[in-house]
Amino acid sequence: MTAENGMVKIAVDAMGGDNAPAEIVKGAVEFARAGTAQIILVGDPDAVQSELAKFDVDGLPIGVDPSDGVIREGEPPALALRQKPKASIVVSTRLVKREQADASVTMGSTGAAMAAAAVVLGVAKGVERPVLGGPILGTAPRTMILDVGSNVDCKPQQLVSYAVIGDVFARYFWNLERPRVALISVGAEIGKGNRQIRETTELLEKSGLNFVGNVEAHKLAKGAVDVAVCDGFVGNIVMKLTEGIGEATDERLRDRLQGTMSAEEIESVAADIHQLTNVVEMTGGGPLFGVNGVTVVGHGSANATAVYRAIEVAKRAVDTGYVPRINQELEAIHAKLGE
Amino acid sequence: MTAENGMVKIAVDAMGGDNAPAEIVKGAVEFARAGTAQIILVGDPDAVQSELAKFDVDGLPIGVDPSDGVIREGEPPALALRQKPKASIVVSTRLVKREQADASVTMGSTGAAMAAAAVVLGVAKGVERPVLGGPILGTAPRTMILDVGSNVDCKPQQLVSYAVIGDVFARYFWNLERPRVALISVGAEIGKGNRQIRETTELLEKSGLNFVGNVEAHKLAKGAVDVAVCDGFVGNIVMKLTEGIGEATDERLRDRLQGTMSAEEIESVAADIHQLTNVVEMTGGGPLFGVNGVTVVGHGSANATAVYRAIEVAKRAVDTGYVPRINQELEAIHAKLGE
Repeated sequence: MTAENGMVKIAVDAMGGDNAPAEIVKGAVEFARAGTAQIILVGDPDAVQSELAKFDVDGLPIGVDPSDGVIREGEPPALALRQKPKASIVVSTRLVKREQADASVTMGSTGAAMAAAAVVLGVAKGVERPVLGGPILGTAPRTMILDVGSNVDCKPQQLVSYAVIGDVFARYFWNLERPRVALISVGAEIGKGNRQIRETTELLEKSGLNFVGNVEAHKLAKGAVDVAVCDGFVGNIVMKLTEGIGEATDERLRDRLQGTMSAEEIESVAADIHQLTNVVEMTGGGPLFGVNGVTVVGHGSANATAVYRAIEVAKRAVDTGYVPRINQELEAIHAKLGE
Repeated sequence: MTAENGMVKIAVDAMGGDNAPAEIVKGAVEFARAGTAQIILVGDPDAVQSELAKFDVDGLPIGVDPSDGVIREGEPPALALRQKPKASIVVSTRLVKREQADASVTMGSTGAAMAAAAVVLGVAKGVERPVLGGPILGTAPRTMILDVGSNVDCKPQQLVSYAVIGDVFARYFWNLERPRVALISVGAEIGKGNRQIRETTELLEKSGLNFVGNVEAHKLAKGAVDVAVCDGFVGNIVMKLTEGIGEATDERLRDRLQGTMSAEEIESVAADIHQLTNVVEMTGGGPLFGVNGVTVVGHGSANATAVYRAIEVAKRAVDTGYVPRINQELEAIHAKLGE
């Protein structure tokens, strides 16, 4: 799968995101300069070339692959995929499917990236749609929470799949030997929670994972477990509530500190506290899970530095080889649980 | 229902809470001094009298009603209720049922208070268990969120009942004319969310309430609506996550401010910011909803000041007459929706 020179190849959607293509190309060029991966910029050739011309890219491992059209945030993903079969996110993902790239990276619409990954790469055993997750709480930067995306009304088998994905992630990305896996629920005692949680508990107890029971949300915020599993409805609320509290806190804190210290000091304190509720921006993006390939989705507002970091996440994802591992373990667990 | 002298009568569980009976009696005596309500302290007569003896209560509208036993936090409520039929929370609630008191107040086990209210007072039409709710987010102190308690796997009809309760609360306690009612969900568009949300949406659109659709959690945190309705599973996670983020933020903020200002100033800033995530302690407790009477449950760690405030909430609840109003409106809406 790697380039002739042995380097990992990463397709970067040059058209996706608020600051495309300028910041995307800039971040990609910076990454190419590091010399650890071959970059394929996917986008409108003229637009990308005119951005590339701003840099001295002679001899750098960076090239362009043409695409036609962009899927914007807010477009219904499935429809847009049919209407724009050559959109940058589709072409990037297809490069991965065809093994012409090892991973794709986009700052564009998360919905479009998920739809493209599902359709082009396919989803893993026991997963219905791509899974979004990561260490989304700044107060718990080493707790993988999933799903935080669009999987609602999950069946217990799906939640078990998320547990497997989180377990592999924590072992491969964080080098944990035996991650503590828990279900987000309303009571710590096993058996508490709603029907979905109780049924999933039964499966997880037989799974062979290091299942430690339920985690309540106040302990979740403190990083009490390594992998926290939930329905996408709950995960999305956890993520957005954290964001909302963070913004309100930030505003109040800046007001409150007025006159007590210099503007520069206020900025520094506020930035420190804001990190507690804003991990996504810190890490520059995370991989989609449960799909047969590596796709990293970053924040739409990403600047070149965030693009660089997202490419770095993609390279690490390829290097760790977690995708084939997840697929193996999902096959194994669903066979074990008799499906 | 009021005392011979026309005063509202409030039964106060003198035995419930971490600081019972000392702080409970102290807060109750202070309230009696205000002279706006008759207080009935319910508890072990010797223990309560020996606390009362510390104050000059001559001529104050305060008396004692004997009880035997206390239900502690963590005891299984239903079982405890059978084993301790004369426990202070049961006796307090029974005074309300018998119209010997207009309201009861406890700092004891929330589960026990809910069980006592359900069994002794009974629940309203369209409600299966007592409902917990209130302006639980400090970032949104004028958004009533319910259920945040033990109602999980709610049927759409139950969520409609919570909407009615929240609507009456917002009108009677906050004097809003036409509260904006929304469902907590993962997308603002009507129709987004899980099955429960989509089914409830259909009912709320026919309800006659000022239903404004879905509210996402980041907007919830900013007070975008007046009444936010959710399954107790989601509400409890919203409440506890807020608490957890608040505690982590508080800790980091105090650390970060070390050396930049005086200890006193740090305390003041931290307290201000902590309020954003800690409304329950500010208000001293809230009423249980969906039961045929007024029961106010405060924080277990309440001191005399918090007890005073909880009694104040109970008096206000009686004065507004919201309970009979909720019952009427629940009857009407469930008749309208054809149940």
